[in-house]
Amino acid sequence: MKKIGILTSGGDAPGMNAAIRAVARRASAEGLEVYGINYGFAGLVAGDIFPLDEAVLDDKIARGGTFLYSARYPEFANVEGQLKGIEQLKKFGIDALVVIGGDGSYHGALRLTEHGYNAVGLPGTIDNDVPYTDFTIGFDTALSTAVEAIDKIRDTATSHQRVFVVEVMGRGAGDLALWAGVATGAEAIIVPERDYDVPAIAKKLEAFREAGHDNAVIVLAEGVMSAQEFKAELDKYGDFDSRATTIGHVQRGGVPTARDRVLASKMGNYAVELLLQGKGGLAIGIENNQITEHPMEELFDEKHHADLDLYDMNNKFNQ
Amino acid sequence: MKKIGILTSGGDAPGMNAAIRAVARRASAEGLEVYGINYGFAGLVAGDIFPLDEAVLDDKIARGGTFLYSARYPEFANVEGQLKGIEQLKKFGIDALVVIGGDGSYHGALRLTEHGYNAVGLPGTIDNDVPYTDFTIGFDTALSTAVEAIDKIRDTATSHQRVFVVEVMGRGAGDLALWAGVATGAEAIIVPERDYDVPAIAKKLEAFREAGHDNAVIVLAEGVMSAQEFKAELDKYGDFDSRATTIGHVQRGGVPTARDRVLASKMGNYAVELLLQGKGGLAIGIENNQITEHPMEELFDEKHHADLDLYDMNNKFNQ
Amino acid sequence: MKKIGILTSGGDAPGMNAAIRAVARRASAEGLEVYGINYGFAGLVAGDIFPLDEAVLDDKIARGGTFLYSARYPEFANVEGQLKGIEQLKKFGIDALVVIGGDGSYHGALRLTEHGYNAVGLPGTIDNDVPYTDFTIGFDTALSTAVEAIDKIRDTATSHQRVFVVEVMGRGAGDLALWAGVATGAEAIIVPERDYDVPAIAKKLEAFREAGHDNAVIVLAEGVMSAQEFKAELDKYGDFDSRATTIGHVQRGGVPTARDRVLASKMGNYAVELLLQGKGGLAIGIENNQITEHPMEELFDEKHHADLDLYDMNNKFNQ
Amino acid sequence: MKKIGILTSGGDAPGMNAAIRAVARRASAEGLEVYGINYGFAGLVAGDIFPLDEAVLDDKIARGGTFLYSARYPEFANVEGQLKGIEQLKKFGIDALVVIGGDGSYHGALRLTEHGYNAVGLPGTIDNDVPYTDFTIGFDTALSTAVEAIDKIRDTATSHQRVFVVEVMGRGAGDLALWAGVATGAEAIIVPERDYDVPAIAKKLEAFREAGHDNAVIVLAEGVMSAQEFKAELDKYGDFDSRATTIGHVQRGGVPTARDRVLASKMGNYAVELLLQGKGGLAIGIENNQITEHPMEELFDEKHHADLDLYDMNNKFNQ
Repeated sequence: MKKIGILTSGGDAPGMNAAIRAVARRASAEGLEVYGINYGFAGLVAGDIFPLDEAVLDDKIARGGTFLYSARYPEFANVEGQLKGIEQLKKFGIDALVVIGGDGSYHGALRLTEHGYNAVGLPGTIDNDVPYTDFTIGFDTALSTAVEAIDKIRDTATSHQRVFVVEVMGRGAGDLALWAGVATGAEAIIVPERDYDVPAIAKKLEAFREAGHDNAVIVLAEGVMSAQEFKAELDKYGDFDSRATTIGHVQRGGVPTARDRVLASKMGNYAVELLLQGKGGLAIGIENNQITEHPMEELFDEKHHADLDLYDMNNKFNQ
Repeated sequence: MKKIGILTSGGDAPGMNAAIRAVARRASAEGLEVYGINYGFAGLVAGDIFPLDEAVLDDKIARGGTFLYSARYPEFANVEGQLKGIEQLKKFGIDALVVIGGDGSYHGALRLTEHGYNAVGLPGTIDNDVPYTDFTIGFDTALSTAVEAIDKIRDTATSHQRVFVVEVMGRGAGDLALWAGVATGAEAIIVPERDYDVPAIAKKLEAFREAGHDNAVIVLAEGVMSAQEFKAELDKYGDFDSRATTIGHVQRGGVPTARDRVLASKMGNYAVELLLQGKGGLAIGIENNQITEHPMEELFDEKHHADLDLYDMNNKFNQ
Repeated sequence: MKKIGILTSGGDAPGMNAAIRAVARRASAEGLEVYGINYGFAGLVAGDIFPLDEAVLDDKIARGGTFLYSARYPEFANVEGQLKGIEQLKKFGIDALVVIGGDGSYHGALRLTEHGYNAVGLPGTIDNDVPYTDFTIGFDTALSTAVEAIDKIRDTATSHQRVFVVEVMGRGAGDLALWAGVATGAEAIIVPERDYDVPAIAKKLEAFREAGHDNAVIVLAEGVMSAQEFKAELDKYGDFDSRATTIGHVQRGGVPTARDRVLASKMGNYAVELLLQGKGGLAIGIENNQITEHPMEELFDEKHHADLDLYDMNNKFNQ
Repeated sequence: MKKIGILTSGGDAPGMNAAIRAVARRASAEGLEVYGINYGFAGLVAGDIFPLDEAVLDDKIARGGTFLYSARYPEFANVEGQLKGIEQLKKFGIDALVVIGGDGSYHGALRLTEHGYNAVGLPGTIDNDVPYTDFTIGFDTALSTAVEAIDKIRDTATSHQRVFVVEVMGRGAGDLALWAGVATGAEAIIVPERDYDVPAIAKKLEAFREAGHDNAVIVLAEGVMSAQEFKAELDKYGDFDSRATTIGHVQRGGVPTARDRVLASKMGNYAVELLLQGKGGLAIGIENNQITEHPMEELFDEKHHADLDLYDMNNKFNQ
């Protein structure tokens, strides 16, 4: 192995740049040449490939987004797409790849491995919805953004004795809602992994109010319903002067937190180690604080499991 | 004058606590007793009034929201409401008031002044829509929040070559959009004070894209229309892979910026000086970097004027 | 068990308030009464003890420092001190305690347990120097503060092509330097756990400069020497237009990160569970992402181990 | 005039990049070509000059430091240095310049103007020590950094009932200390523009403590003495468990605040307007919220005046 390529795929996530840098730095240290591939698999097929210069990497560890750009490219599911991609790898002499993205992008990575080009996957998504990893690259930053936002909303909730329904991201996963809810002392957390009971919540909020605690924040995972919809439900069971708000796209960007940068660096570093060992088709994770890898096929049959102990603990805190 | 009362009214704004603290500290220094009035004019009428203890003030300068709470209370427009309020002032021996809120709350303050209780108003609102002041308390913090959010959104816009329509607050005023737009290098700013031309904007975005600048942020004042509506308009004139996002309630809360704290401190300090001079019915502002005051009546006939030079400058930057 | 007390001891750390809240909330849910003890063991002995009101807890999860105050109190090492403390516990009817602080404070907690008052310890310190826990409460926030500071310093280092020696906290432990160094792409990290070679570092910096990479940040753990001393050493081996800077006390304060709040909440929650099981003399930790406990005695013979893989990885990145 | 050059000189300041971008964007809009000059006057003399590409500017408005680098170059005080610089201007066909830096860099700009190359100066320094401008580019960001730091320090001061002496930057000017002190509720502010009386301060702190207010922050301008020195003075007059801390170099870097970006944009924009009018040798400022210009010679005889009303107000707040 002499040359490796790196691409980012799917939604952007803070820490992707730190991961790219880690792969490039470690690969350079091992005497490998490193190529950046722009626009994910679309750029691979189009040959939008260039040597990753050290100077370009210098200030990237602290930058949100991905400087290799990202794009959806469903055409890579077809063999023709894959073969065009392999042609480009041949043309540039690239032997192996690191793919950073959600587990959707692992399908493409696995196909390349099957074609003889080892590809290793890094979980880059704010949603924390990838199996076999406790945390994805970007989750901690999105969490931090959500928590800062909810702290601000709490100011207004307190000043005006209101109930706010705050919708956070996470696609089908409740992780962001769970962590953000616990971290902001949410009076209720609503996630797809658990049933919810609006009348019971309304009753609890009434009880809190009678006890002198007259504002509340409900953190809602987008996978359940929209903040507006939940507010409409809630308003049927009481008059809370409620407001609905959606934190929105800000959760995808921003300067990555220290945790995300370190996690991305460790994973990027380990990806190069696996490639050096001649391995491919592996998805890297962090489980119980250890960097691990699993065959990509295993991820396709598995679901990510949110830490629902947080849910139960938060309920105890708000009895 | 021996005792003064302080209340906050209308939407909460970061820096209100700093203003309360400034009034209380300066009043104490002048040998006055200071009373907090909870929940704005509603609390005045209900007699929710208490001596403002020094200890309570200690950590407030850095806190968002208002620890005196705020509430709408349209009933104070009626003479009965006002007389009830005055009864409470008599009961507590309060001679004069400082009212912190939008110019809506100045009506109540003026009525009290007419009844013989001098009241001075401070412009506390994130919207910057109060006449005779260049800046309101809370505007700088809301601006800072909006800019941090748009910086994050820019990461995703860049990574995915998208156009984002970002809606910021400001009610009828374009100030927040103008300042946030200039500060984030927005490719277009849409404000109520100026007409807009969606086809022309679409054409400009196409030209930028052809020149290799393939992402854009349009900062939109809520007073024009919603982000979703603007996006729908824009999509009629081109395919920009556009997204609409609303920054929302976070703009109302959060730790106040240094600027807001200093502005609030100066205004609170000056309010006490005016009351000491036996003056009332005055609205405090900052104009051309000087603390000023105007009779409240003058504000009711006047509109706030946004700094539209920012609009023209931004257009030049994005020709 | 009917009543539990909570105190914070040693240096303050962000997340201590979140831990106090978690203990109080979970204890209330279990029908226990909760008392706050001000000023650590000093306040225990002095009887500065009060019922922890729900209302007091409301806004604490997001606040730095400890609202129960902290103080050093070496007198608690003596039996007289301990007996006075126990007298106070009797007077208030407190059956068990949660002690939040560095492992130094565990000695006092163990003594109380031996006297029949179960005490459980939570690792609250920014230094991450407590054995049997991967992370202490406050570490993530201090790390975040250090990283934000170094990001800013990098701006100046880049603008002026300088080498900055940046001293971070950690007492005898290198954790903060290791994590902050990796997260900011430090060209070198100096920690007490590893030897350092100033001439070799100087040579490496020269090589970087010749390769066009003409600024650098060296992250230095305070346990090694001061930034000024290290700069003086470095300047002997080259002209780097170097600067020394110490991040200082800011690392101890500030709004806790989401991670610290969640960690503190989990640990506080678990402390109540242990006390409910009639256990004491235990130190809570997080190991491999699981909440664990160990007899306090075991900690006194054990040293915390920094994650030196980070050191080696960073060296690879900067070959 | 067809081509203009831009350079940054002296210490870097957040917002310099926003100013460069504003000059380049406005100049492009006017049909001018724009050249970047690296490393200030040193780069001018060395011919380190390059066309400023639009793409380079795209993400710069939100970046700290200066991407044109900065350097001290005292040799430009000599005619030889100036003539070499002019040779380079001729070579590149540059007609006029914008110089961003402290008023020290205006000497070079004035010399170039005298040689027939109009140069306009922008006040870029965090110290706010330039005459004829209320604010310099970078001051608001440095203030924001200092305030965030002091807020964190206040957490520890409160938790441990300590007095902190916090040294902020500002060179000979007290502005940063004045604004940061007022914004953080400092119990005392020490600036070069006013005498200080340590025994009186100690007495005041004792009185505060007796009144139950047992922590304090003293904000000290670096132009007076170091934090360590002041602490040593203070400790002579009482036992405050005092700590000294220096905020340090972080004040020079970081993402510029919205205010700094808007100020830099307005000033950069106006610089191009002045050059288009064939003017040179002018220093741009903001006075009473209006963009103004003054002949550079006038600045050399004038001192910047800090807003000492802040000092007096803060004293009233802490009587």
